[in-house]
Amino acid sequence: MSRYRGKSLIFSKEFLIYSVFSKLLSVQTSSMAQSSKHVVTFVTGNVKKLEEIKQILGPKVPFEIKHQKIDLPELQGKMDDISIKKCDEARKTVQDRVVVEDTCLCFNALGGLPGPYVKWFLENVGPPGLHKMLAGFEDKSAKAVCTFAFGDQDGKVHLFRGETHGQIVEPRGPDTFGWDSCFQPDGYNQTFAEMPKEQKNQISHRYKALDKLREHLIKINATES
Amino acid sequence: MSRYRGKSLIFSKEFLIYSVFSKLLSVQTSSMAQSSKHVVTFVTGNVKKLEEIKQILGPKVPFEIKHQKIDLPELQGKMDDISIKKCDEARKTVQDRVVVEDTCLCFNALGGLPGPYVKWFLENVGPPGLHKMLAGFEDKSAKAVCTFAFGDQDGKVHLFRGETHGQIVEPRGPDTFGWDSCFQPDGYNQTFAEMPKEQKNQISHRYKALDKLREHLIKINATES
Repeated sequence: MSRYRGKSLIFSKEFLIYSVFSKLLSVQTSSMAQSSKHVVTFVTGNVKKLEEIKQILGPKVPFEIKHQKIDLPELQGKMDDISIKKCDEARKTVQDRVVVEDTCLCFNALGGLPGPYVKWFLENVGPPGLHKMLAGFEDKSAKAVCTFAFGDQDGKVHLFRGETHGQIVEPRGPDTFGWDSCFQPDGYNQTFAEMPKEQKNQISHRYKALDKLREHLIKINATES
Repeated sequence: MSRYRGKSLIFSKEFLIYSVFSKLLSVQTSSMAQSSKHVVTFVTGNVKKLEEIKQILGPKVPFEIKHQKIDLPELQGKMDDISIKKCDEARKTVQDRVVVEDTCLCFNALGGLPGPYVKWFLENVGPPGLHKMLAGFEDKSAKAVCTFAFGDQDGKVHLFRGETHGQIVEPRGPDTFGWDSCFQPDGYNQTFAEMPKEQKNQISHRYKALDKLREHLIKINATES
């Protein structure tokens, strides 16, 4: 049984999410009064200190971003269903506005798989193995999909999705963040791992999803302030 | 997005489970008094008529095998956890002895994957696609794993597992039952699909798991009669 040893993949992923989240929200800080702050709790299965998040986000954001570690069960099935159920589960504990995140890597040759199960494949065979899984298929195209599920105060779940299309290639660049080294976005000749982080964050599935979530949070903030 | 169209895969699988289950239990019929019958409910997500099951099982079995269709959520994660949670969920509805089944196909080159997610891969790319997924790997070995989770009257879950080791090969034989056509058990030169059903049922992961479950049910029957 092979087992791929990534380099702090989960930590890196969480860190990037918070970084992007922070960046997006901080854009709004200059025009927002501190008194209008609402709270949204970001739930992941990893321990991240709230203080660290606050430092990344800075003192002035339209929403106060809290963090809570809850070991959420993840279902098999369709992307939307997985995100909605995960958010529902998170909300049972948080009982307030909550955000959960899911990332899928969908190979077109495999009809969209490994999709939501990519984390297990990444853990077992790493980016080289993901690339090898397509050795027998001509079609190397894939899409990276990020979904943020936001549970509002009434318990309704809103999904914000970002997609980036690309190709699965032999890994290039530092193997420090998930499957970035084997994903080359369309229109670029670098993998996500080879790109400067700033460039990746302008085109990534995660950035696109967070951008939509940000718009939604700003609307809420404007309505409730 | 490709989508493999199998030939009544799920129906066939259920049918085989019931057939094997029936065969195993009916061995005991001659020595069992009809009055000693207990009930165990077999839960799957597929519609199967109880009458049909009774016909397959015949009138004299140590347990009365009922069937109930419940759309059970399936978790991601480890085999045991998936089976236990699924059984717990089934028992919430049945509130009596209950059996659920899970089948995994574990490629050693992929560290045991697709494992519990094989049904999604089978649905999308079929046995030819499963075989192609290993084109880039030298190691074509795999194991088929079947787990029956039995929830007893106290709500405790007992797992009965059967494993059969083999190789993933280019599909041979009729494509009528799951991934049978691309799985060649070690020590045989036929795939599961090419073998007579009787032969397959003597060596299959499902038979082995049901054999253990049968032993357990017989013990219960002997204790409670």
